[in-house]
Amino acid sequence: MSSWQRTHTCGDLTHENVGEEVVLNGWIENHRHHGALLFIDVRDRYGITQVVFDEEKKGTPQGLLDRAAKLGQEDVISVRGSVAPRAPDKVNKKRATGAIEVFVTELIILNEAETPPFEVLDDPECGEELRMRYRYLDLRRRPMQHAMIKRSQFVTSVRNYLAENHFVDVETPILTKSTPEGARDYLVPSRVNPGKFYALPQSPQIFKQLMMVAGLDRYYQIARCFRDEDLRADRQPEFTQIDLEMTFVEEDDVLDLVEGMMVRAFKDTFGAELHRPFPRLDYFDAMERYGLDKPDLRFGMEILDVTEQVKDCAFKVFSGTIADGGIVRGLCVEGAGDKYSRKDIEKGLTGYVSEYGARGLAWAKVGDDGLAGSISKFFEGDAGTALCEAMGAKSGDLMLFVADRKTVVLRALGELRNKLGTDLGLREHGEFKFAWVLNFPMFDYNEDRGTWDSSHHPFTAPVDWDLEDYSKDPGSIRSRAYDLVMNGWELGSGSVRIHRSDVQERVFNFLGITQEEQRAKFGFLLDAFQYGAPPHGGIALGLDRLITLAIGADSIRDVIAFPKTTSATDLMCDAPGDVAPEQLADLHILTQKSKSSS
Amino acid sequence: MSSWQRTHTCGDLTHENVGEEVVLNGWIENHRHHGALLFIDVRDRYGITQVVFDEEKKGTPQGLLDRAAKLGQEDVISVRGSVAPRAPDKVNKKRATGAIEVFVTELIILNEAETPPFEVLDDPECGEELRMRYRYLDLRRRPMQHAMIKRSQFVTSVRNYLAENHFVDVETPILTKSTPEGARDYLVPSRVNPGKFYALPQSPQIFKQLMMVAGLDRYYQIARCFRDEDLRADRQPEFTQIDLEMTFVEEDDVLDLVEGMMVRAFKDTFGAELHRPFPRLDYFDAMERYGLDKPDLRFGMEILDVTEQVKDCAFKVFSGTIADGGIVRGLCVEGAGDKYSRKDIEKGLTGYVSEYGARGLAWAKVGDDGLAGSISKFFEGDAGTALCEAMGAKSGDLMLFVADRKTVVLRALGELRNKLGTDLGLREHGEFKFAWVLNFPMFDYNEDRGTWDSSHHPFTAPVDWDLEDYSKDPGSIRSRAYDLVMNGWELGSGSVRIHRSDVQERVFNFLGITQEEQRAKFGFLLDAFQYGAPPHGGIALGLDRLITLAIGADSIRDVIAFPKTTSATDLMCDAPGDVAPEQLADLHILTQKSKSSS
Repeated sequence: MSSWQRTHTCGDLTHENVGEEVVLNGWIENHRHHGALLFIDVRDRYGITQVVFDEEKKGTPQGLLDRAAKLGQEDVISVRGSVAPRAPDKVNKKRATGAIEVFVTELIILNEAETPPFEVLDDPECGEELRMRYRYLDLRRRPMQHAMIKRSQFVTSVRNYLAENHFVDVETPILTKSTPEGARDYLVPSRVNPGKFYALPQSPQIFKQLMMVAGLDRYYQIARCFRDEDLRADRQPEFTQIDLEMTFVEEDDVLDLVEGMMVRAFKDTFGAELHRPFPRLDYFDAMERYGLDKPDLRFGMEILDVTEQVKDCAFKVFSGTIADGGIVRGLCVEGAGDKYSRKDIEKGLTGYVSEYGARGLAWAKVGDDGLAGSISKFFEGDAGTALCEAMGAKSGDLMLFVADRKTVVLRALGELRNKLGTDLGLREHGEFKFAWVLNFPMFDYNEDRGTWDSSHHPFTAPVDWDLEDYSKDPGSIRSRAYDLVMNGWELGSGSVRIHRSDVQERVFNFLGITQEEQRAKFGFLLDAFQYGAPPHGGIALGLDRLITLAIGADSIRDVIAFPKTTSATDLMCDAPGDVAPEQLADLHILTQKSKSSS
Repeated sequence: MSSWQRTHTCGDLTHENVGEEVVLNGWIENHRHHGALLFIDVRDRYGITQVVFDEEKKGTPQGLLDRAAKLGQEDVISVRGSVAPRAPDKVNKKRATGAIEVFVTELIILNEAETPPFEVLDDPECGEELRMRYRYLDLRRRPMQHAMIKRSQFVTSVRNYLAENHFVDVETPILTKSTPEGARDYLVPSRVNPGKFYALPQSPQIFKQLMMVAGLDRYYQIARCFRDEDLRADRQPEFTQIDLEMTFVEEDDVLDLVEGMMVRAFKDTFGAELHRPFPRLDYFDAMERYGLDKPDLRFGMEILDVTEQVKDCAFKVFSGTIADGGIVRGLCVEGAGDKYSRKDIEKGLTGYVSEYGARGLAWAKVGDDGLAGSISKFFEGDAGTALCEAMGAKSGDLMLFVADRKTVVLRALGELRNKLGTDLGLREHGEFKFAWVLNFPMFDYNEDRGTWDSSHHPFTAPVDWDLEDYSKDPGSIRSRAYDLVMNGWELGSGSVRIHRSDVQERVFNFLGITQEEQRAKFGFLLDAFQYGAPPHGGIALGLDRLITLAIGADSIRDVIAFPKTTSATDLMCDAPGDVAPEQLADLHILTQKSKSSS
């Protein structure tokens, strides 16, 4: 080991090392000069250690303090010295190394640093653009290092769990063919095959199904996927999935496996104890109770049905809606009677639900002597008591109601429930509440195009394998798709897949995919199903969002080392960039620009 | 668990399960009808189990045998039955399940199979094109499943070793900017930024160096890399590297770490015991002894210098070459005197070395009474004895010599040594001999362009940090690059990197990269080096080749689930493929074809 190389990291030294000669390497975190004494905090990924230059009492050679005094933040140094205990009143309990300091006898400057473009460790003024441009400095911040390390630990734990459960980690191609997720593909022109293009995969879906046909039995991959979509804040052009597939399974096999994986990875990475089994909600049940297919189960406040109680009431909004085939449902907000004023409700909350299509929000506060609020005069005496009973409301509670078509009511109350959860602090930070939502509808009606689309993807099996005709009431057909939900977010989707070519063709036909398209796009999958395809199913979980939620980061950009901006650019590398005309000629392509200027 | 789902895999059942009722799921491997008995071998990834239909004695329900008799190879079935011991003379010792069989009481056909386009498990006639087109069937073959499983186990072991050694697994971008490896990039047109292109990475080199600048200390990734080159048999357009980088290190730190990783992964995956430390050879020493920078150390037969012994001999080819500044070196092929005839040597071996530029191959067989062969008459008596002594040759050995310029001699003898190793069976299969080659030259002379190139890449540090002028004898400057070699193959390259911007610019300048190019291509790296870059180094190992060699596969295509052909196409998916004109319009590009036809 060369003389400059560390014997310990900056997070290692404790009382046990007192008296040892050590070498530390790291960055100067800060630097305090007190007359004949100079203190430097040396930082690396593992911690911070205080080193002291003291020429008078502690053997720092003459002149070294002056050299050290000229150093600045983020300079990279090697210091040799002896470990000494700190005086009891100087112990820094916030630091693993806070009980000691190192008296320096040798200093080697490994590299000097210019003044960085922003305060590396804490610059509240620093905008995200600057952080992205100098990502290598941004990544020095402790929250970013924490995010990278936790992400890595999480993935390591997931991998070990899957390996122990006989999964084979297989890499699928990045240079491939359009996949059927329906988003826009990134394309790669082929040099060897002029005029032809590879597509970057939106998922390894077809490959993983083919591996089941191949008999690999259990596959997983931490898979990079690509979608050329206009980016929202929580999307990236390339993203990562925990992708897995299993043979000879039904839903419960996949769900049990994934639960085990989450329990293990949350325990290993965050020390969190998750409880199994996760609640398993039928899709329609989830919609009825929470108004959304990704319920936040950190709090209750379920949507309640009061149609029976209000169908004959004098309040025409209620009784009229029901007479017209609509429904009335409500939320009982426990103890919130005095937390929301009339104005809060009639402006704030009513405005909020109107964004989701509700034409109004009826309300009543429950007092000791009856109801108060917009609908109280219609529910006096027994009618009020019956309503409160149906809502499980007691004195001090706030009841909120929406009357409309069912889809509007559920959506509006589901979103309102989430808002109230946030407003009232019901969503506890650091708590992880998982749930499964099962048996999604097989098809969704696409109002723009007047057609039926796959809700999940066209490889999802129907609950009833033998249903021949999907055109009779397609909206009622259930699929074997399931979503994993955590704290109100969807973490991923999966399904039992179709493994029979007759069923696969029937689905393609119903979706209006012509025979020619079926052959051109999925011919090899349909062929594969002819040669002994086993029943199989799987799931894909979004790793970026999962880690973002688990560590409480603001954005998925905070859990990706080198993310793109919302305009899909890498500000550090300046990608995408210009390329030479010869490169385009090699690829047999022209840009529109080069064409118009030629 | 549904009634059709397996209770055990086809590799599980032993004597211990006798009497149990079990369900197996799998593919029909084969099918033998003996009158009132029907035997089926059911296969899955884990093994094969024989199941028996016996209506007379073992309770197979009436009619089931007839149904089962109609099944064919590769049909997917579920069978329920009871485990019974086989008669001692019927035990199949080659199978884990060979001691038992299952008497079937229930049969469910999960999927039927058409006759496959080739014999799935063993079709010697089947060409690689057919295998690639039906890769999902090809992957059913046991050697392919073995390759996928071993690859996965190897990677899992590597990951765990690195995690235990504080490495952080970080994903770097696939959509990025041209990297400096010098091969042709795959490009991806940007929709959002018209006329601009992403490049797929040839390696994560710059990102990993920036992570060291960021203080992540130890990074690794099983990284997908891309090169758009004309493919040789052992190349793929996308390939996988074990990529790692470490901070505050010198060569030995990286070498020690990688040795530990190999020892662990070879033990975990193949049960092989590797010996540490691996031999560490200086580049020039390796060249002198083995003629190549990737020596196969499974056998000795080093190149020996006889210049001293032959410089004054009467054989003008030797003495004249030395007088002209050349050298004479030889191989002593132990006990091979009677294995090669004059014709074998003067046609076969001489022809072989001529492919590497040698103008001839001098030879002598050592007998009890002196030498025989092309040069024997020049080396009679003491001269012959002296020559044999220098070569360590004894009776029965064959000596082979090349006289020429040093580069020609070393190359020719190095290649000849490898050929002899193969011919004589000296390369033991299943033996893994690793070595390090250190201190490669910093620059290689490019004869075509008359310029000096980086031998490794331009981020490699010179041995002498402070050397100011690279133009004086550039060929003698040594770098801090190292290669890991196994059994005569290079598995990967690494180096201690440049972390000082002055040295980096000096190297760029010497390589003829203009200031403008430096800014445009590597500006962010040069910037990063200004803000506190620590000393660092790392390595990248080619995973595909490593696994190919370790399992003794014929081609890297046998260790990649879905490889491309040598014309960079995926015959199964038919990628690259055609795309719609609207897709190109979205990307602001035209194909040459679409231009000429418009």
